[in-house]
Amino acid sequence: MSTQVEPLATTLPARYYTDPEIFRDELERFYCESWVCAGRADQIANPGDYFLREVAGESIIVTRDNVTGDNDQAVRGFYNVCRHRGTRMVTSAEGKFSGRIQCGYHGWTYGLDGRLIGAPHMEEGSGFCREDYPLNKVQAAVWDGNIFINLGPQAGPLEKQLADLPQKFAPWRMQDLRLHKRIVYDVKANWKLVVLNYNECLHCPVLHPALNRLTNYLGADNEQPQSTYIGGAMGFRGGAETMSLDGKRRRDYLPGLNDEERQKVCYYCIFPNFLLSLHPDYMMTATLWPKAVDRTEIIAEWHFHPAEMSKPDFEANDAIDFWDLTNKEDWKICELSQAGIQSRAYRPGPYSNRETLLHAFDQMVLAREREAKKRDGR
Amino acid sequence: MSTQVEPLATTLPARYYTDPEIFRDELERFYCESWVCAGRADQIANPGDYFLREVAGESIIVTRDNVTGDNDQAVRGFYNVCRHRGTRMVTSAEGKFSGRIQCGYHGWTYGLDGRLIGAPHMEEGSGFCREDYPLNKVQAAVWDGNIFINLGPQAGPLEKQLADLPQKFAPWRMQDLRLHKRIVYDVKANWKLVVLNYNECLHCPVLHPALNRLTNYLGADNEQPQSTYIGGAMGFRGGAETMSLDGKRRRDYLPGLNDEERQKVCYYCIFPNFLLSLHPDYMMTATLWPKAVDRTEIIAEWHFHPAEMSKPDFEANDAIDFWDLTNKEDWKICELSQAGIQSRAYRPGPYSNRETLLHAFDQMVLAREREAKKRDGR
Amino acid sequence: MSTQVEPLATTLPARYYTDPEIFRDELERFYCESWVCAGRADQIANPGDYFLREVAGESIIVTRDNVTGDNDQAVRGFYNVCRHRGTRMVTSAEGKFSGRIQCGYHGWTYGLDGRLIGAPHMEEGSGFCREDYPLNKVQAAVWDGNIFINLGPQAGPLEKQLADLPQKFAPWRMQDLRLHKRIVYDVKANWKLVVLNYNECLHCPVLHPALNRLTNYLGADNEQPQSTYIGGAMGFRGGAETMSLDGKRRRDYLPGLNDEERQKVCYYCIFPNFLLSLHPDYMMTATLWPKAVDRTEIIAEWHFHPAEMSKPDFEANDAIDFWDLTNKEDWKICELSQAGIQSRAYRPGPYSNRETLLHAFDQMVLAREREAKKRDGR
Repeated sequence: MSTQVEPLATTLPARYYTDPEIFRDELERFYCESWVCAGRADQIANPGDYFLREVAGESIIVTRDNVTGDNDQAVRGFYNVCRHRGTRMVTSAEGKFSGRIQCGYHGWTYGLDGRLIGAPHMEEGSGFCREDYPLNKVQAAVWDGNIFINLGPQAGPLEKQLADLPQKFAPWRMQDLRLHKRIVYDVKANWKLVVLNYNECLHCPVLHPALNRLTNYLGADNEQPQSTYIGGAMGFRGGAETMSLDGKRRRDYLPGLNDEERQKVCYYCIFPNFLLSLHPDYMMTATLWPKAVDRTEIIAEWHFHPAEMSKPDFEANDAIDFWDLTNKEDWKICELSQAGIQSRAYRPGPYSNRETLLHAFDQMVLAREREAKKRDGR
Repeated sequence: MSTQVEPLATTLPARYYTDPEIFRDELERFYCESWVCAGRADQIANPGDYFLREVAGESIIVTRDNVTGDNDQAVRGFYNVCRHRGTRMVTSAEGKFSGRIQCGYHGWTYGLDGRLIGAPHMEEGSGFCREDYPLNKVQAAVWDGNIFINLGPQAGPLEKQLADLPQKFAPWRMQDLRLHKRIVYDVKANWKLVVLNYNECLHCPVLHPALNRLTNYLGADNEQPQSTYIGGAMGFRGGAETMSLDGKRRRDYLPGLNDEERQKVCYYCIFPNFLLSLHPDYMMTATLWPKAVDRTEIIAEWHFHPAEMSKPDFEANDAIDFWDLTNKEDWKICELSQAGIQSRAYRPGPYSNRETLLHAFDQMVLAREREAKKRDGR
Repeated sequence: MSTQVEPLATTLPARYYTDPEIFRDELERFYCESWVCAGRADQIANPGDYFLREVAGESIIVTRDNVTGDNDQAVRGFYNVCRHRGTRMVTSAEGKFSGRIQCGYHGWTYGLDGRLIGAPHMEEGSGFCREDYPLNKVQAAVWDGNIFINLGPQAGPLEKQLADLPQKFAPWRMQDLRLHKRIVYDVKANWKLVVLNYNECLHCPVLHPALNRLTNYLGADNEQPQSTYIGGAMGFRGGAETMSLDGKRRRDYLPGLNDEERQKVCYYCIFPNFLLSLHPDYMMTATLWPKAVDRTEIIAEWHFHPAEMSKPDFEANDAIDFWDLTNKEDWKICELSQAGIQSRAYRPGPYSNRETLLHAFDQMVLAREREAKKRDGR
């Protein structure tokens, strides 16, 4: 079911894709003051496990503290900056702390909760208190195995941003799934062009002949756009049972799904950076990491059920290769969009009825800009 | 015959070679609002043939439409930007359209005249008219086989810019010549330094020992500088008959030349980007494509008469290798000029009597700047 | 003996390491209006020998003129810019002029004293005087074999900047030492972070396990900070006799040293760019060449006594490899400091009593900034 666009809704002016100042503002608004999906809880299964994530130029340590009780409460985020002379402490993209985080310059040492527990030769000076120099914290929270972080000092709860999604996607039991494959793409396009590309299948017949055999591009069942996410579901055609090179399903259905949920793929973009593609038998996620007004790093991951992964004949390449091919087609066309929009000849062009989610996303972008300007008195 | 420079005419201040703002203004003035030579008509001999040219950061499609009558009227220029969502449509540097230009994203399709002839799923919306979304046009015109384009919306006729050149160079019958070889150079120097280098041979004894054997560097017969071009002719010496590694001529004289025209090479710079070197037996062209205040792409091409090219013993390397060597010597010294002028120690230096064309070019650059500032009320 | 820092002296605000404008100002203040160490007199032993040095984006020719009398008076510095059309003349990093410096474009020719002695075809014009077009000079001076240059038009004498250092280091007889090895490092850190790193050994136990075995990091005997330099000496431990991979000394003591001087290494930073490490049996120098606010080229050199170098069993790798390893550890941590300080989470952090020289350097940086602003009326 597609919603009617009002006559001649158009794409945004070029500056939203080319102006470094708007980009910097959007980084603040969308990537520093919102919850962004940083990765998966199973990447840091045990206390001291960590990974680094770069958000808006900031290196963030995501790690797991020692806590009793609810495991999701143990996930922590810290700026990767020593409080002594500002040194970046951690350089490996992932690893395990042996109970403490130590700076390699002068040996300042922090607990997994960020407290400063050692500062060689600082004792002698007067006026120095260890308690004044904990690591700078970043808010962290977990939804069904997906870790979100928020750099904003006034971060509201993640639940508000997720709205009804936890209930909607509970049957997929994302917290049970495990990472099998990660591919990182470097895309020379503004992050919003990637979102626009993800949220319509009008381009599928022209751009994705392989995908188009498995799914009816006119059959997207889009939800009414929400203020923090957009998305919808698409069914299969021609006997396909999942998105794979041949449409065949080589893994059991995910355990919690009913008949209706087994017949579709849910494609949701949870603003600003989480592209969630829930398949009957696996989950693909993509997180967007804007590097410049015209460059975005995309981390795509394929997650499967551990029961399947432990089978001797477990296969995943049908799903990975299919989407890797499709992703590359998409990123290439995003780069061409970026290149064209940079032209002086570009003018906002008309959206069709098949691009209503994109118009909704654009309107959200403009609304957030208006709010920010109002707040800042601009 | 050289014109007397008034006492101590000097080179331009450094900012004309180093200031990105002046560079951007010059791109507008000289590359967007003038006719620039884009290539040759024989590159797009048949309807649908095309090549891309990047002008001032803009990707321009140059193609040939289906028309009856004067073939030169069929050359078209378009911005490489789809009117739907702004996607760059064409990515190969040259090729052939099968009668239409299609965007690879959602399949919008245009005729070779730029009219929108297909826009999938746009019919359904109200208020949409195909006629409102043709490709954005760029003016195109042809002079004796040389294609010129003009991005300016108020482009005057090419003829005005060419002045008396068509009459002057008619004997060389450039429209009959055909491309044999292209070499693209990436030169780390401002485009004007390349023009300056091209228009004097005072540097020949020091920089070009090979060239200096063939021609008398003091014997340049420079024309009175014009507002849209500068240039002159040079004769041979020591028995040389053309510019080649050994001065030997391995091809018949071009058919239209008289005795006097057979004894010289004409070196003309048609502002802003066309360096035309007419030899007794071939034509070398170079077009300048500024990429940054300190970087210019130069496309050099060697064109010959088809009667020669069809001979079994046709040879061109004597001419190509000679100029390729000379070009590289020239581009290298242009890069060193750029490097030196960027120094705080640089001050405008004195031109000699052998550099009068350069002074004329500099004065034209300043005059055009004054006009533009006056027009813009600056 | 370490000086007491006042309570909670802290590191500088981030902008001193990240703001391109402050960087440009510091280039002027510290690298253009001070004496910077450019290299060694033995690199240009004979008249016409030269090397190039890039200072603040300027290519400077350092050469030796023909003079009678004091050899140190023969060292000359020139901007590498021809006075005709501004061409950079010299491109090889080092070499020998055959009595004159000639521009490769139009053949303008200068003496080793910078006077213009040839300008082809300039005679004919009126109003041209050769005397008006000498090469632009840079002040040059020599201290015990170390060449300093000063781009400032109002350069005071080098002696004022060196203060009591010539007397202090006379026993090492630096003018007798000869270059054996040069290693150039490209470090992605602000130049001041390299100075800070050089002037404390608090980091030695954590960062330099090899170095820490040879010297007691708590035993630095720092001098009272001076306005143009900071430094101090460190003794050996565990039987070490010099800084080398195993602490063994494979060369005779430098001839002029007394017993006390044989038991220590002097580490001095002579502002802004000269790191002088005087060992009992060799000298290591490092000169800093800022390339960007976050990038510094470091030229490290190892110099030995010629009597040692002429021995058949002369060995130097113990000293070179030791410091190359240590240098790389240092540059890496400087890069991590740069990365961390760029974070929005960075705040000036507290210095310990072991970092008093650093605080003095920071205060000098701030004082010079205040002076400059006062002078410029800002």
